[in-house]
Amino acid sequence: MEKLIQFKDLSRFTSDVFKKMGCSNADAQTATTTLLSADLRGVDSHGVARLSGYVRLWEAGRINTAPQIKIIHETPSTAVVDGDAGLGLVVAPFAMQVAIQKAATAGTGWVAVKNSNHYGIAGCHAMMALEHDMIGISMTNASALVAPTFSKERMLGTNPIAVAIPAAEQPPFVGDFATTTASNGKLEILQRQEKEAPKGWVQDMEGKATTNAAILKENGSMLPLGSDIEHSSHKGYILGSLVDIFCGVLSGASYGPWVPPFPAYVPMPENMPGQGLGHFFGAMRVDAFRPTAEFKAEMDHWINRFRQAQTVEGYDKVLIPGDPERESEKMRLQAGIPLMNSVYEDLRKLSGKFNVDFI
Amino acid sequence: MEKLIQFKDLSRFTSDVFKKMGCSNADAQTATTTLLSADLRGVDSHGVARLSGYVRLWEAGRINTAPQIKIIHETPSTAVVDGDAGLGLVVAPFAMQVAIQKAATAGTGWVAVKNSNHYGIAGCHAMMALEHDMIGISMTNASALVAPTFSKERMLGTNPIAVAIPAAEQPPFVGDFATTTASNGKLEILQRQEKEAPKGWVQDMEGKATTNAAILKENGSMLPLGSDIEHSSHKGYILGSLVDIFCGVLSGASYGPWVPPFPAYVPMPENMPGQGLGHFFGAMRVDAFRPTAEFKAEMDHWINRFRQAQTVEGYDKVLIPGDPERESEKMRLQAGIPLMNSVYEDLRKLSGKFNVDFI
Repeated sequence: MEKLIQFKDLSRFTSDVFKKMGCSNADAQTATTTLLSADLRGVDSHGVARLSGYVRLWEAGRINTAPQIKIIHETPSTAVVDGDAGLGLVVAPFAMQVAIQKAATAGTGWVAVKNSNHYGIAGCHAMMALEHDMIGISMTNASALVAPTFSKERMLGTNPIAVAIPAAEQPPFVGDFATTTASNGKLEILQRQEKEAPKGWVQDMEGKATTNAAILKENGSMLPLGSDIEHSSHKGYILGSLVDIFCGVLSGASYGPWVPPFPAYVPMPENMPGQGLGHFFGAMRVDAFRPTAEFKAEMDHWINRFRQAQTVEGYDKVLIPGDPERESEKMRLQAGIPLMNSVYEDLRKLSGKFNVDFI
Repeated sequence: MEKLIQFKDLSRFTSDVFKKMGCSNADAQTATTTLLSADLRGVDSHGVARLSGYVRLWEAGRINTAPQIKIIHETPSTAVVDGDAGLGLVVAPFAMQVAIQKAATAGTGWVAVKNSNHYGIAGCHAMMALEHDMIGISMTNASALVAPTFSKERMLGTNPIAVAIPAAEQPPFVGDFATTTASNGKLEILQRQEKEAPKGWVQDMEGKATTNAAILKENGSMLPLGSDIEHSSHKGYILGSLVDIFCGVLSGASYGPWVPPFPAYVPMPENMPGQGLGHFFGAMRVDAFRPTAEFKAEMDHWINRFRQAQTVEGYDKVLIPGDPERESEKMRLQAGIPLMNSVYEDLRKLSGKFNVDFI
């Protein structure tokens, strides 16, 4: 059911495809690094499995592979970036770099992005801050699949948030999560296995609870983190809304039910209030608050204490956010990246289509 | 079971008590405004019901009512504030004002606070930004009641996050929520009513699911937003951790299981890694991103669209974050604030203790 592909082979192939789409060498490399960080970190739904999806968006004229990405407004600690309909995989690292530069002089940097596309996993952009001894923040809106509390209508995307915080001896703290109860990727896995979803993940088109993992195909919707009002789904709804407003309204991108869809066959929403989808990035210099070494030592102390928290029977350790993804990355860099047959075949078709060497 | 007290009477009384504790007139007014914003907004657990708790902390020497609150480190967009063990109700508005001033010149302002105490509800500080056409952010750590995913140990407070965003014709968007499935206030209400808690709110000292609303008295713990791993409690754990790190580690306050307790009879934690508890505030000038009028018009558009989202049967409207609290404030300013008899008697005792006119 799976093929194991070496990272460097997958990387070479992916970069070749991006170049054939019209990306510059540098952009192809950036897009590849961003996209494959998902495969390395074990978020298979957001990695190379989506490469053909990006190709279809490009064919539909919804992605500009030679964008003039630029800052259109700025203050000492903020900027707005126009992505010129470029690949989010390229626009996002550009914008995060702007946030980091702002932070270098102003202490913090905050960048809202409009006119972009899907940017891969949120975490990899936030993590760009780490080597500068900064805290990195990354979020994006996405096309609507999630119903607010009390609603049966899809109004919000899975709108992820990622925050990366450096430590000293310990690896960094990296939280990266969709603001829904479950990720769409997990639902897709259950669908393929023809299994039911746990209660509280999705609802049907009338807003009734269901365990049908394929209910999104029947106009169902995903539920905000918290699942139902008794378990505070309004908090997940607030979180998803904040991401939507920071990424969409603050930047001039589209928002709410008007965010452009990822599948190229889905028509663009009518009366879009802004341009493309939006992201929001932050970088905070640790030493804008306290000496870096002191902060990092305290982070080690924090992480060590949480690692030692007493566990519930049946679990041998408490995890620190970022642990599972780091474990995956280490393993996959050595052993290779497992691709499902369907993804492997998808890539073979791209190889033929663009006449590039297969993996 | 309840007494209805006019806001201005409760306000005069509360301010008198703070003055007797040694607060300056200005500080007493600030503390009162902050504390009673909880009563007005319907968050009864965080308002005047806690006044005697603050008094006991002061008696125990854990609160300094004449603090020298000062900025101890800063950059163009950041500052660290030392609260000098003052009332969080006074320290927090000071720090939020610093964030707003920073934003006026740098576009955004971010302030970490150490050596503080409980600051009332998160939302009222975030809302200070609104009149300046800024987005306001407020969070605080708190003493540990919440177990991380896979753990049975109390490691985090209910660590709330609030974000306030201005609109034009529409009232502002104000999200204000604990990063747990349920608030401690809701648990207390169930205890008083001798009712069971819904599944997923708390666990017992072994980490087993329970519906015992009084389980915190038996070394149980609250659960992070998401409740269990199947419903992504690790996301609530990440959120609570982020608040703890931003408020505690970044500022030099205490953090995790070492955050000082609110009840004065609970001994202070040993080996505290920092000073007092911590807060984190942010202010972002809307026009640091796009023209204010344009942004506010888009916020109206966002809010109007979400208000019109189709509802699930049995619910007549989708709420915008801040709606219920605003409704409460409007009603209570007119009709008075309902105080439970136990709270009313508590205040009567304070009236005698400090020789101030009763409400």
